[in-house]
Amino acid sequence: MKLKEIGEFGFIERFKPLFGGLVQGAQVGIGDDCAIIPANDKEDWLVTTDLLMEDVHFLRNEIKPEELGYKSLAVNLSDIAAMGGTPLGSFLSIAIPADMEVACLDAFMQGYHQLSAKYNTPLLGGDTTKSLKHLAINVCVIGKCPKGKARRRSMAKAGDVIAVTGNLGGSAGGLQVLLQKRSYAGLSAELVQNHHLPEPRLNEGLFLAGCDGIHAMMDISDGVASDLVHILKASGKSAVVDTDKLPFSETLRQMADEFGWDAIELAASGGEDYELLFTVAPEDWQLVQKEFTQKFGKPLYAIGKITDGEARINWQRNGQTISFRKSGFNHFQ
Amino acid sequence: MKLKEIGEFGFIERFKPLFGGLVQGAQVGIGDDCAIIPANDKEDWLVTTDLLMEDVHFLRNEIKPEELGYKSLAVNLSDIAAMGGTPLGSFLSIAIPADMEVACLDAFMQGYHQLSAKYNTPLLGGDTTKSLKHLAINVCVIGKCPKGKARRRSMAKAGDVIAVTGNLGGSAGGLQVLLQKRSYAGLSAELVQNHHLPEPRLNEGLFLAGCDGIHAMMDISDGVASDLVHILKASGKSAVVDTDKLPFSETLRQMADEFGWDAIELAASGGEDYELLFTVAPEDWQLVQKEFTQKFGKPLYAIGKITDGEARINWQRNGQTISFRKSGFNHFQ
Repeated sequence: MKLKEIGEFGFIERFKPLFGGLVQGAQVGIGDDCAIIPANDKEDWLVTTDLLMEDVHFLRNEIKPEELGYKSLAVNLSDIAAMGGTPLGSFLSIAIPADMEVACLDAFMQGYHQLSAKYNTPLLGGDTTKSLKHLAINVCVIGKCPKGKARRRSMAKAGDVIAVTGNLGGSAGGLQVLLQKRSYAGLSAELVQNHHLPEPRLNEGLFLAGCDGIHAMMDISDGVASDLVHILKASGKSAVVDTDKLPFSETLRQMADEFGWDAIELAASGGEDYELLFTVAPEDWQLVQKEFTQKFGKPLYAIGKITDGEARINWQRNGQTISFRKSGFNHFQ
Repeated sequence: MKLKEIGEFGFIERFKPLFGGLVQGAQVGIGDDCAIIPANDKEDWLVTTDLLMEDVHFLRNEIKPEELGYKSLAVNLSDIAAMGGTPLGSFLSIAIPADMEVACLDAFMQGYHQLSAKYNTPLLGGDTTKSLKHLAINVCVIGKCPKGKARRRSMAKAGDVIAVTGNLGGSAGGLQVLLQKRSYAGLSAELVQNHHLPEPRLNEGLFLAGCDGIHAMMDISDGVASDLVHILKASGKSAVVDTDKLPFSETLRQMADEFGWDAIELAASGGEDYELLFTVAPEDWQLVQKEFTQKFGKPLYAIGKITDGEARINWQRNGQTISFRKSGFNHFQ
């Protein structure tokens, strides 16, 4: 049997039980955006790691090295944001083809440093080695949050409003621009920026985790259609999502019109937007929305609600049930 | 300029100053076996990470998958041992060629689990993704040690005895067996085992860190000739090492005789033995040695001493100064 037959999550399910017995005390292991390790009386520590492979996660000729450095850290900071945490430090492992230019690596580190400085996250260690062909980048970030307050995927409750912190589908649109070599009235650059320079929502995650009524939270790395199912499985709940409520930018709308893309499909199943997806008690939703907008000068978007039932998304459009096949990115298909 | 012109350490020196300003409080960042992050009133936490690339660090057809799983974790646990720490948990990122057999991955995880269970180290998270060609494995381990008690490379003092916890060169001999396809009276298998299944010296590191008089400590991953220089540079000291004192196994001696290898050279500059290299105040050496032997049933080996002077190793044989050119493994040469 080849790995592509069982996929990434099938593989994880095979070894997860083997290690369950080793987890100690209040540690939380495999299955959320971050692991949780109790550190002291007031804080839990959060740990996340992401491995980016050339020609799988990025095309070395399509992304500037400073953008790649930025993005390698951003996707990990986004996981810390998803738990409501604050970063403490990062670790960078990089396997480098021997013919790579030092100037290119310097630019990579400049981009990595720019985001490190923005969120006050020191680079504390790592590993540098050779690769025979593809550039490989692994980043690990350690963060912290108030003890017991990490927002987990398993915390959704029936009746919760499902909401997101910003526009979706922009990153997927940017990927289409790159793959199809599209250009249109300067709009394409904005989508490529969504794809290459995602903003980790650390401030938003910290704010939301401190609000009353916020239950489950995660970041959108594979697309709502795939990521929300993780919340549903972990919480043992179902969901109704209204495709008309999925937010996307005017730029994506115009580009979709021009090139025949389905903007709603990109917003639902396109990955790598790194906005936060969360659920909130219906009685707290109004206040959370109001305070968020006051603080950040931008809205939150309600896209559906959590219900009892099977762990799947019931998609609706104009109040009618529709079928929606996209279920996110399986790396081994 | 290509990376191979400046090497791994040259690259690190280029970006290290950029990040120095972000390091917070008592954190210790780039430059030791582990980073150190204060966690609570009694403990510091230790973090280390290693990236293993197929055809650079291992040959997929020469190492059994269960050995590769074991070794991927072992080299990181060895870094925790080097600081005198105890592991809290590990994180595994793995980029897998799509044609890999699931049975092979299951065996990899069995080997990883075997060592995890031996040292009570839960696998708490990671990342699983696709690779187009080479298998890539990144492991990150978090550990702990009593506050302020981590043994660092910078702690060597003039007059210290330099010692190691076990035989050297066995792993390098095992690599020669594999590369030269050597076999000799069953002895070759022992060296290959040294290479594929190194024992992280966690119990020894914990014991030594608790002894009076132990100053600097690190693990031997690149060979004494290279690794001791890291201690010398970090401590601003020099060293005299007697090549006749370098310990190696009878098996390595016999194999070296048979195949014309230089056993002393392998012991001095062969990497991946993962024994501990440490320095100890001369007045404490006898007691440390006695108590270590009582506890572990094996000796410690004094190989030289720390002196004032330039950060280099002065090699001696039979009391005569000799030149020794090998300086360890530069991944980009």
